[in-house]
Amino acid sequence: MGKRYDVAIIGTGPAGVSAAITATVRNKSVLLLGSASVSDKVSKAHMIQNYPGLPDIPGQELAQHFLDHLKKMEIPITDRKVTMIYAMGDYFSLQIDQEFVEASAVILAIGVSFGKPFPGEDENLGRGVSYCATCDAALYRGKEAVVVGYAPKEEADVRFLAEMAQKVTYIPVYKKEDAAAMAPELFPDRPNVEVKQVKPLGIEKRDGRMVLATDGGEISADGIFLLRESVSPGKLVPGLELDGNHVKVDRKMATNLPGLFAAGDITGTPYQYVKSAGEGNVAALSAVSWIDSLKK
Amino acid sequence: MGKRYDVAIIGTGPAGVSAAITATVRNKSVLLLGSASVSDKVSKAHMIQNYPGLPDIPGQELAQHFLDHLKKMEIPITDRKVTMIYAMGDYFSLQIDQEFVEASAVILAIGVSFGKPFPGEDENLGRGVSYCATCDAALYRGKEAVVVGYAPKEEADVRFLAEMAQKVTYIPVYKKEDAAAMAPELFPDRPNVEVKQVKPLGIEKRDGRMVLATDGGEISADGIFLLRESVSPGKLVPGLELDGNHVKVDRKMATNLPGLFAAGDITGTPYQYVKSAGEGNVAALSAVSWIDSLKK
Repeated sequence: MGKRYDVAIIGTGPAGVSAAITATVRNKSVLLLGSASVSDKVSKAHMIQNYPGLPDIPGQELAQHFLDHLKKMEIPITDRKVTMIYAMGDYFSLQIDQEFVEASAVILAIGVSFGKPFPGEDENLGRGVSYCATCDAALYRGKEAVVVGYAPKEEADVRFLAEMAQKVTYIPVYKKEDAAAMAPELFPDRPNVEVKQVKPLGIEKRDGRMVLATDGGEISADGIFLLRESVSPGKLVPGLELDGNHVKVDRKMATNLPGLFAAGDITGTPYQYVKSAGEGNVAALSAVSWIDSLKK
Repeated sequence: MGKRYDVAIIGTGPAGVSAAITATVRNKSVLLLGSASVSDKVSKAHMIQNYPGLPDIPGQELAQHFLDHLKKMEIPITDRKVTMIYAMGDYFSLQIDQEFVEASAVILAIGVSFGKPFPGEDENLGRGVSYCATCDAALYRGKEAVVVGYAPKEEADVRFLAEMAQKVTYIPVYKKEDAAAMAPELFPDRPNVEVKQVKPLGIEKRDGRMVLATDGGEISADGIFLLRESVSPGKLVPGLELDGNHVKVDRKMATNLPGLFAAGDITGTPYQYVKSAGEGNVAALSAVSWIDSLKK
């Protein structure tokens, strides 16, 4: 560390990996910070159907493809946590533990963070617990699922999941008038959706079934989906303009802070692997233009 | 054809392929229109370094990966050219040769191979200048036509037109070995086709005849056909809002026409494979939301 990098990329999901690859192709020095095994959301996905060119690929395998690509281009992953990013004018200062590192441009690709996990959530992620209903819906054909939704927009995912699943129990973790009346009203065309207004407390695997403990008793199913809102990335970068819980970007992936770009889930829905990879590519090329403009 | 598809996707580059895959994953009926061997811009690339997960891949091989993905998902490519798209309110009508096909949503992913129009082209469109030889051939019985072809596949249209027309002057705007030898070789059964290797410069209407100015002198005829790889998006879709040579889109890949989305090079730079694939994915999910909203 100590030197000034052309671009610091934070996050090793599809957006961060893609950004690192393209910035390297464009001869920029890259500091790629994030999980050394690439982001959990990739590696723990059961099966990804729509990453063009790699059909029906297990998350673990796609993660390995990404790691192989980075290795081939000799791009190391620095597995350390960034706690603060300060815009200094024509460069950025990144706090990493007690150290400071400099970069001319920064690409934020940290995904949507999930807040405090439920007891039993982390252990069962990818093994009965999932964060993406549209990704895994196909696996639930004829099965039972519980969905915990943190915003009304997740109701669309419930509807989609209910096309496949035999039964869906939906737990909205936001204000709803009357739980009893909700299912027929919200999902008139999905009689297999039951809405329960309870508070989730913890997750457990029992006899091959997933059990969600709630304040209204236990609910058991083949799988549990936790569809959370993101946590504010505004805490990481003082002065960063947000759009709800996401970072506000334009079509060039530029944020309101010159030299700071964002890509992937952090910029908003849809939360999709190839969308993130595409945005990482665009963010990298925008960062390259920014860096080149500084040298003039 | 004849039925109404959920979504018509025009173009088989990374954007169109990605859109078709994601729309299919989301259970929508898809009509994918474009080159059966996927777009030339993929297959003719020497080497692609930054498509994450497939390092240092020759274009030919990436194209094959895309074709394999489509095949695995049983998505056929319909190798026909769309000449017009009409927004009808809650659906679109697509003109394909002499036929009309309907779709609830449309994704434009035709790339940027159209170029600047010739002087005189726009003013005379539909009044002596045409983009579709098979559509208008019947009007040329016993008449003379000039055809400017931008790809070898247009030679089939020249052959068809020459069945009707008294005389066809063909101007191939792609590499050909020897123009003089070409007509008898390319069109052995069409002695009324003359091939000229000249560069078109402009179009003019004079005394009721169409005159094509070229670097080898003027050619006059009853009509001029310009058979480009793709028609410029503003002409393909009346009322579509452009931003320079590109289609104007928001972050959801929505255009100004409700239900019409765009993805890939057509939406602007950077012209990158994974950027296009990412946008195709987003466009497909936006189209899915649009289609679902129609059913409410």
